[in-house]
Amino acid sequence: MQTFHLDLQPIGKRIDVPEGTNLLDACQQAGVELVAVCGGAGVCGTCRVRLLKGKLTDYSMTELDELSDEERAAGLRQACQVEVLSDIVIEIPPESLSAPQRLSIEGREADFEWERSIIEAYDLKVEPATLTDLRPDTTRILDALKSRPTEVGFATVAATSVAFDSEAVKSLAPLLRNNDWRVRVVLRNEREVVAILPPERRVYGLAVDIGTTKVAAYLVDMETGETVAKSGAMNPQIAYGEDIISRIRCINDHPNDGLKTLQGRIIETLNNLIVELSVEAKVKREQIVEAVIVGNTAMHHIFAGLPVKQLGDSPYMATVGEAISIKARDVGLKLAAGGTVYLPPNIAGFVGADHVAMLVGAGLFKVDETIVALDIGTNTELSLFHKGRHWTCSCPSGPAFEGAHIEDGMRAAPGAVERVRIEGDEVKVHTIGNADAVGICGSGVLDAIAECQKAGLLTPKGGFTGTHPRLRGSGSAAEFVLVPASKSKTGRDVRMTRKDVNEIQLAKGAVRAGAEALLDVAGIKAAELDQVILAGAFGTYLDLDSAIAIGMVPRTERSRYQQIGNAAGTGARRMLVSREQREIAETIARDVEFVELAKHPTFTKIYSQALLLQG
Amino acid sequence: MQTFHLDLQPIGKRIDVPEGTNLLDACQQAGVELVAVCGGAGVCGTCRVRLLKGKLTDYSMTELDELSDEERAAGLRQACQVEVLSDIVIEIPPESLSAPQRLSIEGREADFEWERSIIEAYDLKVEPATLTDLRPDTTRILDALKSRPTEVGFATVAATSVAFDSEAVKSLAPLLRNNDWRVRVVLRNEREVVAILPPERRVYGLAVDIGTTKVAAYLVDMETGETVAKSGAMNPQIAYGEDIISRIRCINDHPNDGLKTLQGRIIETLNNLIVELSVEAKVKREQIVEAVIVGNTAMHHIFAGLPVKQLGDSPYMATVGEAISIKARDVGLKLAAGGTVYLPPNIAGFVGADHVAMLVGAGLFKVDETIVALDIGTNTELSLFHKGRHWTCSCPSGPAFEGAHIEDGMRAAPGAVERVRIEGDEVKVHTIGNADAVGICGSGVLDAIAECQKAGLLTPKGGFTGTHPRLRGSGSAAEFVLVPASKSKTGRDVRMTRKDVNEIQLAKGAVRAGAEALLDVAGIKAAELDQVILAGAFGTYLDLDSAIAIGMVPRTERSRYQQIGNAAGTGARRMLVSREQREIAETIARDVEFVELAKHPTFTKIYSQALLLQG
Repeated sequence: MQTFHLDLQPIGKRIDVPEGTNLLDACQQAGVELVAVCGGAGVCGTCRVRLLKGKLTDYSMTELDELSDEERAAGLRQACQVEVLSDIVIEIPPESLSAPQRLSIEGREADFEWERSIIEAYDLKVEPATLTDLRPDTTRILDALKSRPTEVGFATVAATSVAFDSEAVKSLAPLLRNNDWRVRVVLRNEREVVAILPPERRVYGLAVDIGTTKVAAYLVDMETGETVAKSGAMNPQIAYGEDIISRIRCINDHPNDGLKTLQGRIIETLNNLIVELSVEAKVKREQIVEAVIVGNTAMHHIFAGLPVKQLGDSPYMATVGEAISIKARDVGLKLAAGGTVYLPPNIAGFVGADHVAMLVGAGLFKVDETIVALDIGTNTELSLFHKGRHWTCSCPSGPAFEGAHIEDGMRAAPGAVERVRIEGDEVKVHTIGNADAVGICGSGVLDAIAECQKAGLLTPKGGFTGTHPRLRGSGSAAEFVLVPASKSKTGRDVRMTRKDVNEIQLAKGAVRAGAEALLDVAGIKAAELDQVILAGAFGTYLDLDSAIAIGMVPRTERSRYQQIGNAAGTGARRMLVSREQREIAETIARDVEFVELAKHPTFTKIYSQALLLQG
Repeated sequence: MQTFHLDLQPIGKRIDVPEGTNLLDACQQAGVELVAVCGGAGVCGTCRVRLLKGKLTDYSMTELDELSDEERAAGLRQACQVEVLSDIVIEIPPESLSAPQRLSIEGREADFEWERSIIEAYDLKVEPATLTDLRPDTTRILDALKSRPTEVGFATVAATSVAFDSEAVKSLAPLLRNNDWRVRVVLRNEREVVAILPPERRVYGLAVDIGTTKVAAYLVDMETGETVAKSGAMNPQIAYGEDIISRIRCINDHPNDGLKTLQGRIIETLNNLIVELSVEAKVKREQIVEAVIVGNTAMHHIFAGLPVKQLGDSPYMATVGEAISIKARDVGLKLAAGGTVYLPPNIAGFVGADHVAMLVGAGLFKVDETIVALDIGTNTELSLFHKGRHWTCSCPSGPAFEGAHIEDGMRAAPGAVERVRIEGDEVKVHTIGNADAVGICGSGVLDAIAECQKAGLLTPKGGFTGTHPRLRGSGSAAEFVLVPASKSKTGRDVRMTRKDVNEIQLAKGAVRAGAEALLDVAGIKAAELDQVILAGAFGTYLDLDSAIAIGMVPRTERSRYQQIGNAAGTGARRMLVSREQREIAETIARDVEFVELAKHPTFTKIYSQALLLQG
């Protein structure tokens, strides 16, 4: 019987199963627990998955009953009802997963003051319409804005330069007449009325960091800057390609609908997050008047529906660099009718608005110290500040840190080994959620390498050496067992292979080489660094000592390293409320010096050195 | 057997038929010729009509074959296949009518110079992207705009203040790469890139006058201001109400979808006109980058999807007064992806942007002479200029001039009596298209009244008097036969009744009273008027001498009257290309003094005087 390869997304777990295996069983064998309330009878519909690639058995009668035409057209199946007939890729929606994934939404809280707000709300009372006062509603509002008390804000702005958003203005006439001629007028950038609400209704904004893998969303009170709710989700585009390049390829391969599909999927996810946050914070859609959305250049372009072909071909170019504001309705994002989305500037094809947001969030603007800041992810962006100058570069670290291309790898989900300690013959592991081990995630592999190295089991070039009860095989077939089959959930060993070590070497080597190249361009040594800042989800969860031990980051004093969490999310929240912070972002993007590593004269040498497992 | 009332729109012809009459036959009896290529066999589908109100027989097998689900959902029927089972209202689409209606699209051609254009197009050549020049596409364009030669336009504008429309920018990356890094960039108001085209592609604009009854559309070369194509259509909203008040009532009665439906119908008509004009002028949609749309306040609000409830209740208020620019895509208008629609300002609930456009088109700004300008239609707007001041008012002249509420009335379509001359016992008529008489349109009734009056057959109060072979009956039952049954197409007399005379008296009385009230406010006499300007479709087609004779317009020297055609269309075309003309429109709306006739102390007296049939 033939064996087929199953790829379970967005969790990133892979497994081989014999032809005809029931899909619900296959997921269980892979250690991925689906909700299946009825125990596989097919009637509860809780084990729904979306088939993205490959062949399953035909629809069962039960499925024909349970799934609507639309759901079937969207590729939905009930896992308990189908068998595997080829290599397949399926996407498991969050509601079908019994345990949630870990999502990085924490970051340094926005603890800052600002002078000039993006959004200002005015409660206005106007004269009722009579036969002797027939001014149109909008004229009444503009007149009231003109005569508003100077202490509330920006009385210097001529109200004649204020325009009404064509959708927002639709609510003016009924609101005025239902609220005794009193309304709250929401002004954006002192220029545009983007919402009209009943008096004293609070206004909110949405900050989002769209990562290649994960999405973090924050609902923010626009007056205080306080985050009132936050949540995360997987980026559903994973199902169309793990990394940026494969998603661009997917779009290029489907010129008619590829871009629209990937854009639609992320917007759908954001709209779900908006509903979730709104319910939690008891906020209505009409109150969410502004959004700041950051992501790498590809995420930015796909979100905005911009062409990405040129991003995938050398010299890998962004088509839009400058910050742009778009109407939420133009992309189908469900904010207030007149709501606006601000997309901060991109620096280059692979240094996007998320890096700019990270710098804003970490306050890395006009810094006096010498600092390197790393945004570690599938793609890693780096910035170096030294004597008033600012260089940036990007390096393709690949998805190994996300558990991809790792034999027993998986994303940071329940059951993933995330910490490893070797104590003599004993190997201690910690899994996410303290669940039985299913696989190993990026920070777990990093730990395992650092611990093997410390135990003398790995050479600087990444080959296994020496002996240990958990080390078996030799040469390229060598592997280190982290969790034996008897203790794992899948009934198979959870291992780290020679190849896994190499994958991580390639990834960490790229990060290190990027940092070293920037130091080289600036003409300084690592020891001169006052701070090494690690941002982003992976940069937060990794064990810093392991990262230092395997030489992922430039070598400096231990106290100078800092893990700052999702600073891009923090930066997005700052830009959401503050005009100064947007100006800072725009200045950063304009003044930064982009370093093209492909053009650096000794980069090859720097990179081969960076591959070595050494501090 | 019962008799039912058929209302055939948008042609405005009404007829009573016995229950069970075939609808195609009924239309023929009413003198309205439908296309019916197969002679009623049901197979050609050319006699399609839309049922708006009332009951017809069920779908025939033939109809079930010929009409799609969507078409049936939209109310389409084949007239030859159905019988009348109640009072009904049907809409006859233009393609089902064998003879086209006469539409007013002529107007004084835009023969004027302007300094500052709304739209400027630049052919730019930028440096190709290389590994040493990684500026994003947008940055290349902004840099090129900054360094563009001063003689082409507005070199004083900082390119940093230029923003890209989020839809327009989507074409930048592929166009740059397919045209050897050369593109045409279309800048609006020196601030926003609204289109990106292949080099040297010409750009066009659309000017539209949405009348309550008719729509006129013009395609204009944005560089030269030349009109390259023009066309007209009936306003499909007629089917939902002949006048503004009944359409507002229809919207109020259908709070869920009324506004959307009426908005959708006019947008659909405009999109069809855009296709028609584009084909004629060999222009692509992407080249139409700007539109100016004028209409009365209700047409303006419905087009923009603004609430109209407050327009229908005293004190009849516009919700939006100021000029607004909206994205064409926000209302579903099919211009270039980034195309903008400029809606000039409204003055009041019943003095809209079309009146402003008429004044702009007629050059009535900062005039030294004493002038009254009348926009005669279902609603009539008037402006009086005297010694640097400008007053305006509106009066509900009603749809009688459109042939509604007239016994044998109809709109200006083939077969409508439009000119009448009484020469002794003989009555000479002229019909539109020289067709056999079907009914009588507004200008025909006006003529008939003036001629009867001249022949001594009508008293100033509107009663028939004296004798004439064509005059029969007496008192309120009196009527004057214009075309005897033997010579008409319907086989029935085409008459003017005592009631018809009264309807026209009410309508012309309203117009005259409005003009007299303005003269009274200004403290001048009609004899002091240097000019009396008649604009609009009806103001163009009516016989001026008849209008003077029955006292529709203030009395002054014959040489001072002027009929100027669709000046609102001319004004829209001027505003389409010129920034000065938009500023003029905005200044007019800001500075005009609106006169509320309901508040004028002696208006009742003025009105009762104005009802009399005398010069």
